Amino acid sequence: MKRIGMLTSGGDCQALNAAMRGVVKSLINSEEEVEIYGFLNGYKGLIYGDFKMLTGRDFAGILTVGGTILGSSRTPFKTIKDPDENGLDKVEAMKQNYYKLRLDCLVILGGNGTHKTANLLREEGLNVITLPKTIDNDLYGTDMTFGFQSAVDIATECIDCIHTTAASHSRVFIVEVMGHKVGYLTLNAGMAGGADIILIPEIPYDIDKVVEAIKQREERGSRFTIIAVAEGAISKEDAKLSKKEYAKKLEKMPHPSVSYEVAAAIQERTGQEVRVTVPGHTQRGGSPCPYDRVFASRLGAEAGKLILEGEYGFMVGYRNREIVKVPLEDVAGKLKMLDPKATIIQEAKMLGISFGD
Amino acid sequence: MKRIGMLTSGGDCQALNAAMRGVVKSLINSEEEVEIYGFLNGYKGLIYGDFKMLTGRDFAGILTVGGTILGSSRTPFKTIKDPDENGLDKVEAMKQNYYKLRLDCLVILGGNGTHKTANLLREEGLNVITLPKTIDNDLYGTDMTFGFQSAVDIATECIDCIHTTAASHSRVFIVEVMGHKVGYLTLNAGMAGGADIILIPEIPYDIDKVVEAIKQREERGSRFTIIAVAEGAISKEDAKLSKKEYAKKLEKMPHPSVSYEVAAAIQERTGQEVRVTVPGHTQRGGSPCPYDRVFASRLGAEAGKLILEGEYGFMVGYRNREIVKVPLEDVAGKLKMLDPKATIIQEAKMLGISFGD
Amino acid sequence: MKRIGMLTSGGDCQALNAAMRGVVKSLINSEEEVEIYGFLNGYKGLIYGDFKMLTGRDFAGILTVGGTILGSSRTPFKTIKDPDENGLDKVEAMKQNYYKLRLDCLVILGGNGTHKTANLLREEGLNVITLPKTIDNDLYGTDMTFGFQSAVDIATECIDCIHTTAASHSRVFIVEVMGHKVGYLTLNAGMAGGADIILIPEIPYDIDKVVEAIKQREERGSRFTIIAVAEGAISKEDAKLSKKEYAKKLEKMPHPSVSYEVAAAIQERTGQEVRVTVPGHTQRGGSPCPYDRVFASRLGAEAGKLILEGEYGFMVGYRNREIVKVPLEDVAGKLKMLDPKATIIQEAKMLGISFGD
Amino acid sequence: MKRIGMLTSGGDCQALNAAMRGVVKSLINSEEEVEIYGFLNGYKGLIYGDFKMLTGRDFAGILTVGGTILGSSRTPFKTIKDPDENGLDKVEAMKQNYYKLRLDCLVILGGNGTHKTANLLREEGLNVITLPKTIDNDLYGTDMTFGFQSAVDIATECIDCIHTTAASHSRVFIVEVMGHKVGYLTLNAGMAGGADIILIPEIPYDIDKVVEAIKQREERGSRFTIIAVAEGAISKEDAKLSKKEYAKKLEKMPHPSVSYEVAAAIQERTGQEVRVTVPGHTQRGGSPCPYDRVFASRLGAEAGKLILEGEYGFMVGYRNREIVKVPLEDVAGKLKMLDPKATIIQEAKMLGISFGD
Repeated sequence: MKRIGMLTSGGDCQALNAAMRGVVKSLINSEEEVEIYGFLNGYKGLIYGDFKMLTGRDFAGILTVGGTILGSSRTPFKTIKDPDENGLDKVEAMKQNYYKLRLDCLVILGGNGTHKTANLLREEGLNVITLPKTIDNDLYGTDMTFGFQSAVDIATECIDCIHTTAASHSRVFIVEVMGHKVGYLTLNAGMAGGADIILIPEIPYDIDKVVEAIKQREERGSRFTIIAVAEGAISKEDAKLSKKEYAKKLEKMPHPSVSYEVAAAIQERTGQEVRVTVPGHTQRGGSPCPYDRVFASRLGAEAGKLILEGEYGFMVGYRNREIVKVPLEDVAGKLKMLDPKATIIQEAKMLGISFGD
Repeated sequence: MKRIGMLTSGGDCQALNAAMRGVVKSLINSEEEVEIYGFLNGYKGLIYGDFKMLTGRDFAGILTVGGTILGSSRTPFKTIKDPDENGLDKVEAMKQNYYKLRLDCLVILGGNGTHKTANLLREEGLNVITLPKTIDNDLYGTDMTFGFQSAVDIATECIDCIHTTAASHSRVFIVEVMGHKVGYLTLNAGMAGGADIILIPEIPYDIDKVVEAIKQREERGSRFTIIAVAEGAISKEDAKLSKKEYAKKLEKMPHPSVSYEVAAAIQERTGQEVRVTVPGHTQRGGSPCPYDRVFASRLGAEAGKLILEGEYGFMVGYRNREIVKVPLEDVAGKLKMLDPKATIIQEAKMLGISFGD
Repeated sequence: MKRIGMLTSGGDCQALNAAMRGVVKSLINSEEEVEIYGFLNGYKGLIYGDFKMLTGRDFAGILTVGGTILGSSRTPFKTIKDPDENGLDKVEAMKQNYYKLRLDCLVILGGNGTHKTANLLREEGLNVITLPKTIDNDLYGTDMTFGFQSAVDIATECIDCIHTTAASHSRVFIVEVMGHKVGYLTLNAGMAGGADIILIPEIPYDIDKVVEAIKQREERGSRFTIIAVAEGAISKEDAKLSKKEYAKKLEKMPHPSVSYEVAAAIQERTGQEVRVTVPGHTQRGGSPCPYDRVFASRLGAEAGKLILEGEYGFMVGYRNREIVKVPLEDVAGKLKMLDPKATIIQEAKMLGISFGD
Repeated sequence: MKRIGMLTSGGDCQALNAAMRGVVKSLINSEEEVEIYGFLNGYKGLIYGDFKMLTGRDFAGILTVGGTILGSSRTPFKTIKDPDENGLDKVEAMKQNYYKLRLDCLVILGGNGTHKTANLLREEGLNVITLPKTIDNDLYGTDMTFGFQSAVDIATECIDCIHTTAASHSRVFIVEVMGHKVGYLTLNAGMAGGADIILIPEIPYDIDKVVEAIKQREERGSRFTIIAVAEGAISKEDAKLSKKEYAKKLEKMPHPSVSYEVAAAIQERTGQEVRVTVPGHTQRGGSPCPYDRVFASRLGAEAGKLILEGEYGFMVGYRNREIVKVPLEDVAGKLKMLDPKATIIQEAKMLGISFGD
């Protein structure tokens, strides 16, 4: 008999349900008897003991459904160690609920912030298994995270739509793709959508080089330019600022995001109309793509296997096309960045894509 | 032998190519010999004699392709009567090019602004046939315009994606749908996407009523609220201002659009996180939906028929499920508004949708 | 207080859930108190008293979900008057269950067969409101049925996919579209997908004309031909047979459907490879398209209104862009056929589409 | 100065255009001058000297377009060594055209058959670079082929649609997925679509086990069962036959494919209605998915790099998330099969999927 707690934390993404279904199906189909406790709205549910008991039936038909049936919330790692407004020690509260329910293991689905907290709970002695969820694919220790390919699909579809309208008018179009710290999503959606310029956090841009690329296209007879800009794109100048200085600068920025800054700069320098599209949270939503459904299901099944074998303290990850278990302490607090010298960047440049560098 | 000029003007939309293909196919499949002159980038091409000769081959395979193979541009009606920067009389220039090429007819695809200019050309003695293109469905004299249903599909898909992410977090989401003057697109996408609140230009909103609707949802246990906001949504107060006063107020607005205003107001009054998504020009792009492909093809074929019969001065429209010819003078300068008392609004209210009124 | 029974009968289609949600939401949002009894699996549930009580919560989130939450089954009209295998009088059983639950009204969603039975129940004195569901759009008394546009979308997507592969090889492709008796679906999907030849039940085809159309395309340099064939397409010869004779002939046919017959005939006459694709039941499945969601919701809301007003014995239909109530006796037993001389057929021919006639 | 010949051979798939665009863009963006000769319709074009010269412009806008702008055809390897009907030595003819055009390299895109011939040409002294194209992902020497993920997406969408209709009726549904020899596509689409049973060539099935799995689902209250069947699925009995014997048996089979055999067997044993859906060639068509667009573009760029470096005789493949060059002699004539003991199969079983074994 296994008593399993489960929670989804952080910004939601596609295939969270698929992954949980994978865990539960693999447990139910085993010889072991299982009880599943679903904590609601991320760590909050674990802190305040807000949960519901779940059966296999709750996981039927959710393979294709976006979002998370458990709800989610962001509980920044910074504050998890601070007491709540009523003075409650949150970490202690989580431990108590864990022991009160006599759980054998917590299955935690989340991204970077979530993994820090998960590792903290592991250090506190709880049995934890995690699954790597994020549209950013920036989780250390795994080649891939679920949610990523689905988000690429949606951002690409957005660029596809812009392509036909851009080709009809003589304009520069900017599509702002999610990703504050890493550029995988923007790079892949940009390459898939045929963007002419891609600006990502890892490669600070020079606005003059961006303008030059636009002008070169014009000279070759192209009526339009499409630029995929990551939320966290940054200019070479700004990249020299300290984090604090840059944060201040961002706050004073008259525009809601860097994309609008880039748009204004191009418009000023070229006189061309620049339009900004912000697909925003749509990139996290909708039905997971088939790739993510299979991938998340597989990770879920392997998590179930680890639970049955009593192996705890791991993230179930993916490396070199193998599903692997990665010690949580190796994952927590680290970010997987895109190397500006990566082969894929070189290939993108061979294809004629400018990174404004 | 018929010599036909063709141009697409105004913001592009889906099925422009499908409609042009319809015109050309119906002419080519007739007994008549035909020459097709495609003017580039809207009325500009006609003014400056920028065109290319087209054959049936140019229209093969474009049924499903978004945008317009002729390019488009906005030439606001206001300035069409003014000379250009070199003193050229633009209307006169268009007439000269028409006569120089000995055209039998101009086929013009466009929305409201385009129709004003088309009617002007008709008054100047040119043979004109128009086709009703706009994602706004606000063209007078026709029940439907092509581009509309495709835009509804894209905006709905956007709301669908937001739905799964909204359901996972406790938030208010605003999706800004295109439409500065009329609300058809927002209303239909909102109803199709299951939006809880819909704000459209025709029904000025009271922010207190909007907040009330959000709170009622919370009381009934709904974790989230989705609001579809037309670009031209307006508050009851602002609706009392003169056009000039309101334009001034908009300019001073700290946010890029009304949606952000609504978001800020809700956040202030409820303390809830509000997220804004702006699909923007994606709503004009991508492959036309099957409905628009069939509809635009049919209109195009009927335009071809009118040309063969030498009947000019009409928009090919759609009324009571019949394709009809509408005198251009009855269309030009009029806007088809959504009646706040229309059956569909009443039905939306029966379904529990709030319009904030 | 209103006590409402509801059931979905016949082949399922998209937007059944959307329509039921519309009925229920409009009732719940009224001042009236309501009890909803959902009969399971079509008339079977009503016959055998198999139902569950439903609340508004059961209808939340189903706007976008295909299929029917009540299940469906085909109970052919012919046998509804015959007793079941245990001698039970089915009509009497339905009446008893209706009275036992003290229902005020039955809301029945279905197509042609379903409407015959619905009208029978009306004649037996039950209060009945129906909603027109079918991917075939062949229901008498309404310009449109829900499910139709969604099916057009799926069949068109299928033809779109075939288009790219057909263009790469020199082949004839047949896409078999649903529709045993009427050709609306095939016609619209064929026109939307750019099919070169469309074969529908209403226009018997001459295989020589079909082959001629293929050869003409070749002569003009087209490498491929795409044919949309309705399940019920029929040759001119076979159209002369009596129903009985034709049914016999079909039975003896070595191929699973007429499409394969057409394919074999073309292959024999032209020597070209012909490939058949059968999307089949996918045309009934998946999330309803935005058009159907809005349409079904509106019909549902109006059904709710009729119930609140105590007006029974009607199908809620759609005519000339108005939602109307149509007496059930005017609908039952009639089929809406596509007129071979309809404007849309003429337009399709102007576009160069051959019907093999 | 480099003179490059290019051709696409075998059944078409998605992202062929994307891959060719990648090759050409990377060459054009290099310092080298380049001439591109596109041979039409596979090896046929090379044999009969049927080609056209291509410029960068021909490759603009084709990233997202399915099919191949060069056309394709199947020239089975077996007959390539035989003279054609006019006695022409085909291999010699290809060599002559290669030398006549003074080509530096042939870029050949194709699957298994294509690679055999490509290797033959290499052995004959021609410079060859190949790119791995197939929806089957059965090409030796590479972890992934382009076309595969796009086909998974389409087959999955098909299963998704069937899911809603299956859930509404009490039926068994079979979806026939492409794949005569290997089961990757069926396995992935089946897992992504939530199929209950998956039958693939690598795991011969026992019809009694299949029926047992269906009955188990019924006992647990599931109203329907969805079975993904690969074209090449085979029963345990038939797997014991020699290739010849089995081919004979297939020919005599009254049904057009194994799926219908399985359907008939289930219907007979369970009395349940079984419906078969055959998406067929749609699985090869339509716009490539973002994954394939990026992947094919990257492979194309790397092919360009090899050409610039004068490295010939390789397939550009993908192993352990690295793009690699694989000697053609290591690829030709080998098939990459799915190991019945592969982790993914075990995971699928943990998820409750039956393989009928």
